[in-house]
Amino acid sequence: MMTSMIENDSGWVVDIVLNPPSLQDNTADADRLKKALSRKIGVDYITVDPFVLKDLPIRLHSWDYRCRCVFFKSCGCGYLIEIMPIENPKPAAAMAVDLGTTRVVMEMIDLVTGKSLLQSVFDNPQREIGPDILERIHYADKPGGLDHLHHLIIDAINEEIGRICKKAGMDRNRIFLMAVAGNTSMTHLFAGISPRGIIREPYIPAANTFGAARAEDLGIHMNRSGRVFLFPNVGSYFGGDLIAGACFAGFQESKDISILVDVGTNAEVLLGNSEWLVACAGAAGPALEGGVSEIGMTAGPGVIDTVFIDPAIKEFQISTIDDQPPKGICGSGMIDLAAALFLSGMMDIRGRLVQDACGERFRNVDGIPHIVVVKEEVSATGRALTISQVDIDSLIRSKAAMYTILETLLQYVGIRFEDIKTFYVAGTFGSFIKPRSAISIGMIPDLPEETYRSLGNSSLKGAVRLLTERGTMDQVESIRDRITYLELNVNQDFMNRFSAAKFFPHTDAARFPSVSFRQQP
Amino acid sequence: MMTSMIENDSGWVVDIVLNPPSLQDNTADADRLKKALSRKIGVDYITVDPFVLKDLPIRLHSWDYRCRCVFFKSCGCGYLIEIMPIENPKPAAAMAVDLGTTRVVMEMIDLVTGKSLLQSVFDNPQREIGPDILERIHYADKPGGLDHLHHLIIDAINEEIGRICKKAGMDRNRIFLMAVAGNTSMTHLFAGISPRGIIREPYIPAANTFGAARAEDLGIHMNRSGRVFLFPNVGSYFGGDLIAGACFAGFQESKDISILVDVGTNAEVLLGNSEWLVACAGAAGPALEGGVSEIGMTAGPGVIDTVFIDPAIKEFQISTIDDQPPKGICGSGMIDLAAALFLSGMMDIRGRLVQDACGERFRNVDGIPHIVVVKEEVSATGRALTISQVDIDSLIRSKAAMYTILETLLQYVGIRFEDIKTFYVAGTFGSFIKPRSAISIGMIPDLPEETYRSLGNSSLKGAVRLLTERGTMDQVESIRDRITYLELNVNQDFMNRFSAAKFFPHTDAARFPSVSFRQQP
Repeated sequence: MMTSMIENDSGWVVDIVLNPPSLQDNTADADRLKKALSRKIGVDYITVDPFVLKDLPIRLHSWDYRCRCVFFKSCGCGYLIEIMPIENPKPAAAMAVDLGTTRVVMEMIDLVTGKSLLQSVFDNPQREIGPDILERIHYADKPGGLDHLHHLIIDAINEEIGRICKKAGMDRNRIFLMAVAGNTSMTHLFAGISPRGIIREPYIPAANTFGAARAEDLGIHMNRSGRVFLFPNVGSYFGGDLIAGACFAGFQESKDISILVDVGTNAEVLLGNSEWLVACAGAAGPALEGGVSEIGMTAGPGVIDTVFIDPAIKEFQISTIDDQPPKGICGSGMIDLAAALFLSGMMDIRGRLVQDACGERFRNVDGIPHIVVVKEEVSATGRALTISQVDIDSLIRSKAAMYTILETLLQYVGIRFEDIKTFYVAGTFGSFIKPRSAISIGMIPDLPEETYRSLGNSSLKGAVRLLTERGTMDQVESIRDRITYLELNVNQDFMNRFSAAKFFPHTDAARFPSVSFRQQP
Repeated sequence: MMTSMIENDSGWVVDIVLNPPSLQDNTADADRLKKALSRKIGVDYITVDPFVLKDLPIRLHSWDYRCRCVFFKSCGCGYLIEIMPIENPKPAAAMAVDLGTTRVVMEMIDLVTGKSLLQSVFDNPQREIGPDILERIHYADKPGGLDHLHHLIIDAINEEIGRICKKAGMDRNRIFLMAVAGNTSMTHLFAGISPRGIIREPYIPAANTFGAARAEDLGIHMNRSGRVFLFPNVGSYFGGDLIAGACFAGFQESKDISILVDVGTNAEVLLGNSEWLVACAGAAGPALEGGVSEIGMTAGPGVIDTVFIDPAIKEFQISTIDDQPPKGICGSGMIDLAAALFLSGMMDIRGRLVQDACGERFRNVDGIPHIVVVKEEVSATGRALTISQVDIDSLIRSKAAMYTILETLLQYVGIRFEDIKTFYVAGTFGSFIKPRSAISIGMIPDLPEETYRSLGNSSLKGAVRLLTERGTMDQVESIRDRITYLELNVNQDFMNRFSAAKFFPHTDAARFPSVSFRQQP
């Protein structure tokens, strides 16, 4: 039986030309196609969806045994999802989903060309139950709670599919694959599985691997034979979003050691290369998401994202997103601010505001030192934008936690920071953070700036990659299976390291030669 | 992780005791169970049905991580279908189905004990479309025809499940597996797939392998996560019923050469052992199903199943089923009759009725010789039961075809009849046939009588075996994959052999030493 390829062979669509059956070669139509496809994609068995099997022979015959196959493979099983003629085929699309706790980003892909067709964002409707995932996990335990949360997200995604299809002129029945990357809790809620174990000792999720479910089973309105792949998680605090990110970063492709850090309220870290992988996660506190200080907020127009202070004249130079009048500060702005305060001597190595150095920007409110970042007259709110010593202390704990987590992980593996060739920073936060500032406050190690690379929305990009490059699935499964998850024990050692990291940039300033140098003058 | 077995380990139910998760062993609940089960049953991946996954953690936890799993495996994939507590478990049942063209036999099995719970038979409702499968294949091509045939059989099976469950006091949601053995056409109609290719050159079915579909997808009303396994076929004329029969006979278990013959309008033959298998099928004509002669009928009360003629006094000794007054003759009765006529000299070696030897039982109707089998005065119908020369000629063609098919197959493989250790005769017909008579007319080879073994309803028994002995699935797949299907070419060689076999017992009487011996006196 001769099989020839016409289209490229990177994604989940292949064109197959079969020898028509004859008295000499009388394999059944479905088995003939299965055999050719399984050889092509390297799996032992292909399951033909019952709806496809039904009229497969008539269709194959009418197309002269030349057909385009849409397929998928997961956990060793191949699935034939749709067949169509090679000439004048209908389109075949897929949907990548970044299933965020706060926002959901979806990207429609053309499965044949691999090109992006449309991207859209919407707020996760589960926020009405609770902005925080913890509240949702508790809510899921109430009668009907889990179902409610499950339907909120599934319905919203179905509606969004409708909107995207309308805009792109696509029939939703032509969407054959969906790849969903979310944290462990969101993945559970999406699948309608209780996330309660995630927050209860011994803190284990219901499932780590979900495989490729039929769209119908999950209530997703796309092609009824379509498959929905949920990125697997490694544990309660290391989810599919990070596995997707690791795939996108290409941890499987090099022996050079890389590290991937996703910073938020939790810091998740993956360290390794094509041979080994170690992951851990730990609480970094809310400071890095701009969630503590009175003026803290997530990135948006008018939010301060860059702060520079001229050390000589102590003059603040700030910039805001979209150059709107300043109304608050985001996580990366806070890091910039802290770095600038420290480098200009307005904050000491213990992170305390130095009244003399702060001059007129120093205020004392109810006995708590404050620094005015934006004066009344230029603020969008008409009130001065200030940061208190409490806010700074919170940031210190976060940055110290981040550094301590990194240090602990490297110590566990037995490597030095200098061994890291690429330091990936994931997530929205990663897109805004300035490595130089984060190094200056001792949040991340003092590596050459070119070591740091922002991945942007790496979970969405990982999902897109899975939908466009077939080999990514093997990487996902390989990454998932090879990760050693290190449970961070908050023991005396950890606390000692944490205490040492609470200084600017660190009690052991020699670790940050580039920062020490600037600080001296 | 320790896994211990409590129940026996032969079927599709295993009891698994897991170590509960701990901070030291924090694999997710579903993955913990999947890992233990996959090790237990020897597959790489287990797919957990989405309806099972949903509340798996809560249930596992409430049962102290001790659970009974109902699972299945097919085509390299494992499926976890249901979990229940080990203590006070609900029942788990399965349904074996012999999907006959004429009758459907179902047997409910207890999946835990492997015991039969109930057996029932009903007429295939597709008979209203056509008693013959050929008529149904043509009907399936008409608009709505395939759907109609599909629903007729699915609805009838669903109703029968209801009746069986009611009788046995079983909840239909507790039926987790169904194994269906039918010929290739019936299997297609059951799956709702067009059988049209089966009767059109190059005579190939739509599919040879169907795997284990979700019951829901086939419209079968049992547990919604349940799986329906359709025995694979080898080709248009060698179906899953024969693969099931081969499994039941145990072709995989011995190096001794066996042969399995299913005789009907078509004769299907499987020859081989644990190392090789060759199959073929050919038209044997309707004579062996009692479908030609005026008094021919299928087995039932009052039907002649045994005929003996005292060669000395030419006295007929007949027996009927249930000892009812004779009203007709079935296929095995016809073989008995032909053997008796021949051995008593009332029929010559060319199969022609010898008027002198027949005496008063000879009649000439419209120039065609007849023999009176049952005289008017003892017949149930009040009329003499006669067999014509035409009926006998038809039987001769059938018996010659049967022998020629066997001869051709053995010649192809290069073995002699004497190399066959066991000669299995399958089907209802096989239950009634008397090897001695069939040998006497030269329909089957002259082997010691103990070589012949009747299998009864071997397709049902094969389906039952699959449901009760897990290893049978490997045998099914191995048998299916290893069979070489021999396309019988009705060429000059075949016709020569056929002509030689049209004599009683054969032109080469030396092939039937036991028959020749009796005939001489």
